[in-house]
Amino acid sequence: MVRVTVWGENVHERTEDAVRERYPDGMHGAVAAGLRQVLGDQVETRTATLDQPEHGLPQDVIDQTDVLTWWGHIAHDQVEDAIVDRVHRAVLGGMGLLVLHSGHYSKILQRVLGTSCSLKWRNEGERELVWTVNPAHPIAQGVPHPIVIPEQEMYGEHFDIPEPDELVFISSFAGGEVFRSGCCFQRGAGRIFYFSPGDQDYPVYFQPEIQRVLANAVTWATPRTRGPVPEAPNAPRDWYLT
Amino acid sequence: MVRVTVWGENVHERTEDAVRERYPDGMHGAVAAGLRQVLGDQVETRTATLDQPEHGLPQDVIDQTDVLTWWGHIAHDQVEDAIVDRVHRAVLGGMGLLVLHSGHYSKILQRVLGTSCSLKWRNEGERELVWTVNPAHPIAQGVPHPIVIPEQEMYGEHFDIPEPDELVFISSFAGGEVFRSGCCFQRGAGRIFYFSPGDQDYPVYFQPEIQRVLANAVTWATPRTRGPVPEAPNAPRDWYLT
Amino acid sequence: MVRVTVWGENVHERTEDAVRERYPDGMHGAVAAGLRQVLGDQVETRTATLDQPEHGLPQDVIDQTDVLTWWGHIAHDQVEDAIVDRVHRAVLGGMGLLVLHSGHYSKILQRVLGTSCSLKWRNEGERELVWTVNPAHPIAQGVPHPIVIPEQEMYGEHFDIPEPDELVFISSFAGGEVFRSGCCFQRGAGRIFYFSPGDQDYPVYFQPEIQRVLANAVTWATPRTRGPVPEAPNAPRDWYLT
Amino acid sequence: MVRVTVWGENVHERTEDAVRERYPDGMHGAVAAGLRQVLGDQVETRTATLDQPEHGLPQDVIDQTDVLTWWGHIAHDQVEDAIVDRVHRAVLGGMGLLVLHSGHYSKILQRVLGTSCSLKWRNEGERELVWTVNPAHPIAQGVPHPIVIPEQEMYGEHFDIPEPDELVFISSFAGGEVFRSGCCFQRGAGRIFYFSPGDQDYPVYFQPEIQRVLANAVTWATPRTRGPVPEAPNAPRDWYLT
Repeated sequence: MVRVTVWGENVHERTEDAVRERYPDGMHGAVAAGLRQVLGDQVETRTATLDQPEHGLPQDVIDQTDVLTWWGHIAHDQVEDAIVDRVHRAVLGGMGLLVLHSGHYSKILQRVLGTSCSLKWRNEGERELVWTVNPAHPIAQGVPHPIVIPEQEMYGEHFDIPEPDELVFISSFAGGEVFRSGCCFQRGAGRIFYFSPGDQDYPVYFQPEIQRVLANAVTWATPRTRGPVPEAPNAPRDWYLT
Repeated sequence: MVRVTVWGENVHERTEDAVRERYPDGMHGAVAAGLRQVLGDQVETRTATLDQPEHGLPQDVIDQTDVLTWWGHIAHDQVEDAIVDRVHRAVLGGMGLLVLHSGHYSKILQRVLGTSCSLKWRNEGERELVWTVNPAHPIAQGVPHPIVIPEQEMYGEHFDIPEPDELVFISSFAGGEVFRSGCCFQRGAGRIFYFSPGDQDYPVYFQPEIQRVLANAVTWATPRTRGPVPEAPNAPRDWYLT
Repeated sequence: MVRVTVWGENVHERTEDAVRERYPDGMHGAVAAGLRQVLGDQVETRTATLDQPEHGLPQDVIDQTDVLTWWGHIAHDQVEDAIVDRVHRAVLGGMGLLVLHSGHYSKILQRVLGTSCSLKWRNEGERELVWTVNPAHPIAQGVPHPIVIPEQEMYGEHFDIPEPDELVFISSFAGGEVFRSGCCFQRGAGRIFYFSPGDQDYPVYFQPEIQRVLANAVTWATPRTRGPVPEAPNAPRDWYLT
Repeated sequence: MVRVTVWGENVHERTEDAVRERYPDGMHGAVAAGLRQVLGDQVETRTATLDQPEHGLPQDVIDQTDVLTWWGHIAHDQVEDAIVDRVHRAVLGGMGLLVLHSGHYSKILQRVLGTSCSLKWRNEGERELVWTVNPAHPIAQGVPHPIVIPEQEMYGEHFDIPEPDELVFISSFAGGEVFRSGCCFQRGAGRIFYFSPGDQDYPVYFQPEIQRVLANAVTWATPRTRGPVPEAPNAPRDWYLT
């Protein structure tokens, strides 16, 4: 049983009719439902949103979260630094983190990757093809090659991230751009997966293939160990023999 | 001054009129000319072909080669294992190696990478866009983003290679496929760059942007050190203090 | 249930009294027993040795093997190339491979890594400390930091391997040398782990901590997918939409 | 000509007699002198310290710096966040960064790496051996294998950093610990090298072999391109054809 907290910015859904109609339970609701659809009783989901106290992420929620998923877009700057610190410490201690689409510009992704995470973009509803470049990777199991997304926002290179520890997916768009759309990182004891498909203007999170990727990523990112962030300890000589 | 040996299979050029007209000096001749065009008197080129004794690669040629470029296609199996062994040892000892396009299936690339190097392909003259994903990389300097190749054979994922040490270019094709088209590896002391653009049916090696990439790659792959392949030495205790 | 075939060269055990006394069931027997000790009924082991027909590795055994472990030392050159080809293809298709200690110079490791795999060595029964550098890695779970091996052959850098995909363990020796003693690679669909502790002259494979590492590595290397080596397929335009 | 700014915390040198006697020109002075010793007129050095306005790093100094070296220890928290932001942006834009020894806990290294950078330590003047694990790397050229440092503070694993893009050196200590002592990273367009030898209590920065490593690292980290941090640009369809 893996415990997932699905975090959603939940602004577009409240302020734009089209988005609310598309995602009546919020984008976080759709992401959570997709995980339950694929993983069934292997997963326990809760959701948290920006407008809640502590953005829905008090310490005890974090402590009970194996994997946190993060979708944000127009309110990245409203996320309090103290909460980002808390999430960061949890990731270093082992919590898994899935950052979705426009979350590329979230404080937490910039924090763990150390780069600007900038990219090129264009929102014209172009066909996206998501190709698997590491078919043996756990996140690629059961995923068609390629996933065809009829309409999506274009995200294109150059994507300013560190060289991923493992690259799983590369997307192409109708306009010809390419994008490293599925990237694995490890920071401290925590596994991080960035996955770019999914936008408030398109029903991408209802596609079963996308749900499969997210479910696989949750399983992959589930901690094997969980602890505090290490602090530099003094080590007496031969401490390891005692 | 870097000494480059440009190896060409030189079969298509001798057996197909269209290829001979396109590449009157052979594809190896075009690759060598492109290097001289960009690098001027910083480079010294020679060519070698399959039909020559020892495929034009006797030991003394290898010994005087800083970087070897390799293009082959329909005669990979005619390359003698003894010559592959010789090239392999030179790479481990520090010689640079550029493997081009259909050279993905050459014995030498399979030897150094340890995988099948298979890929998907389709030869319909599609537009290829070569995108830079690591703009600070030495091989990407002065290269447009993207390079536009009007007509090319499609090479698509999955490309069965080890995760590259550094990924520099990703291509998309008109048909929607993507391909990791510029990949860096190190084996022993030798630097290896695989670059997929370039085919006997299209004049790709005459494009200045492609010539720039190859010239950059030659510079990047020039050895910093050159020696024999190490053999496992017995090391007396504290040998390093003597 | 993971099916492991433990391959042993089985020469020292037959020709040296001290080794036979130390490893009465062969080193392969000790490795297999250690896996059963840790993994219980999650593992099914069989052994195979050099002196058997096809070195105990006919195609049907390979087909029924999820993970192959490989220990060899003085008879690497007696392993038939056809069997190495067979193992290689299986790894590319997904079979896991654990290469142990002096197996660094085996044909199969050189084949998948593409380097000489040379190293420095000294056999004086020195204390080896095996330190974990990636404590969140699945192979490091439940492993003490460091593992203390009272007496071992020294293996020291430079170890001529490609940069590992993941580095899990680094050893130090009483004489001061260091060695990348636990290295992960992926080739094709197969996961490969090289682990250096373990020698015919020392009872290393009886240490529970070492058995734990090997058991973890078997679990890590168990295929998520298994298939033939891909051959470069022609892909008609828009094949992926059919 | 590479322009290096050598940043020093300069606290121990002002408050401890023994350190002042050991490093009469400050540790920054010793580092800068070592670079000039090796690189001669290929390098231009300036120094900057914590106690200066803007820590000696106003924007115009940063703009004229190709590579910044960073040594700090007991006053990491006194470095203003605005200066860390400035250095961070410069690195992403291409400036090289060398972080030395106790700089592992500096704000700037934590910022670019995204981890705690914690480690084990013990200050008992133990012999450190610095082994090269990638002898073909530019930073290892002309460096003995190993470097012997008679007395040093012990830094040991686990070192909480992301898997380095390239690992160049591993150290062992008299007490048996190991440490990844020379690690390469890229963030944005900037190259980063962490090198652990060097402490206020030992004259390590006067050793020619250490000076050689630092000089090599400066050359390696010199920008190939320098620009602003990219911001996510909107890209009209086919922008790349205009």
